[in-house]
Amino acid sequence: MESQYKGCSVNRGIESGTREKELGVANKRKIIRGFDLFLRVAAVVLSLSAAVVLGADRQNTTVAVMLVPTLPAVNVPVTAKWHYSSAFVYFMVANAIACAYGAISVLVITLANREEKPRVATMILVFDLMMVVLLFSSFGASLAVGLISYRGNSHAHWRKVCNVIGKFCHQGSAALGLSAVASLVFFLLVLSKILNLATRENIWLA
Amino acid sequence: MESQYKGCSVNRGIESGTREKELGVANKRKIIRGFDLFLRVAAVVLSLSAAVVLGADRQNTTVAVMLVPTLPAVNVPVTAKWHYSSAFVYFMVANAIACAYGAISVLVITLANREEKPRVATMILVFDLMMVVLLFSSFGASLAVGLISYRGNSHAHWRKVCNVIGKFCHQGSAALGLSAVASLVFFLLVLSKILNLATRENIWLA
Repeated sequence: MESQYKGCSVNRGIESGTREKELGVANKRKIIRGFDLFLRVAAVVLSLSAAVVLGADRQNTTVAVMLVPTLPAVNVPVTAKWHYSSAFVYFMVANAIACAYGAISVLVITLANREEKPRVATMILVFDLMMVVLLFSSFGASLAVGLISYRGNSHAHWRKVCNVIGKFCHQGSAALGLSAVASLVFFLLVLSKILNLATRENIWLA
Repeated sequence: MESQYKGCSVNRGIESGTREKELGVANKRKIIRGFDLFLRVAAVVLSLSAAVVLGADRQNTTVAVMLVPTLPAVNVPVTAKWHYSSAFVYFMVANAIACAYGAISVLVITLANREEKPRVATMILVFDLMMVVLLFSSFGASLAVGLISYRGNSHAHWRKVCNVIGKFCHQGSAALGLSAVASLVFFLLVLSKILNLATRENIWLA
């Protein structure tokens, strides 16, 4: 009888150990999914903010222009808008797509059932990678135009414009900063998934 | 005796079936690795070509400038070099890094032994992802400057320069095209690895 009880308690010990392990894995999964969703929401907010900040970026000012050296300078009105540069248009489109996709991905991940999850996760990872490409290329394009606006290019005779439209340039820089962080968040999402997948044992050998 | 022989032949049949399966998997692995190495060599050649084509891009020409309306135009010498634009400098650095990394990755993959392979493959995938970011952001930056060179920007009073330095612009476009393909090759390398990893059964559930 004693040995029977002993065997029973050992079995119970193994069962409770397995349950604890399962609970541990489930908790780990929950934490990873929670962090993933937090990053996604952050990416949505950041790319939306970048698009809104650049979309609302507009400056009306006047520049004193000397038309004839002997006459006094004439004040010419100058307006700066984001859609005057094709790089900023691309930036807007890229951030709008990233924001919309981010929101859709949060919904899809939350609503997918257990059977659909593997396929959904693969699709999401591929689209995340596309967002990395989209956001970093648009960031590069906008930064290049921003640098010419700030410093000009003496070789091409492109004069800097940020001394005239300073407010527009500062707001544009803020939009660029927000988009840079959104790009890094999507990069982090892809990187974490890749490391999560690739560090499994023997995954590369099969 | 007959039944013994029969059992033996069944065993042999199973063994040969397993061997065939193993051979099939080994062949598939070889094909995938061969394709991966082919893509890497292509990326090295393309990014090297992009850097060389832009590095050799230089044009000396003259522009007729009217200094005083009553006097005849004066021919002013104009020189165009890639390092006159910070976007092109970034493009050169990005393509040089991608080329060097691509060559190192081919060596590392070829020389890694069986035990090192999983770690090496993970590292390579992470670095591939970084190359995607580097190349696409530099492509975006250079394309933005290239577009201003071709079309100018009337709002910022940046005049197009490609009507003067046409040869420089054409060679620059070729470099951009080569780098775009190199970027897509690195993107394809990351995408194929991701799909290869992610489509394994239950990979996302563990």
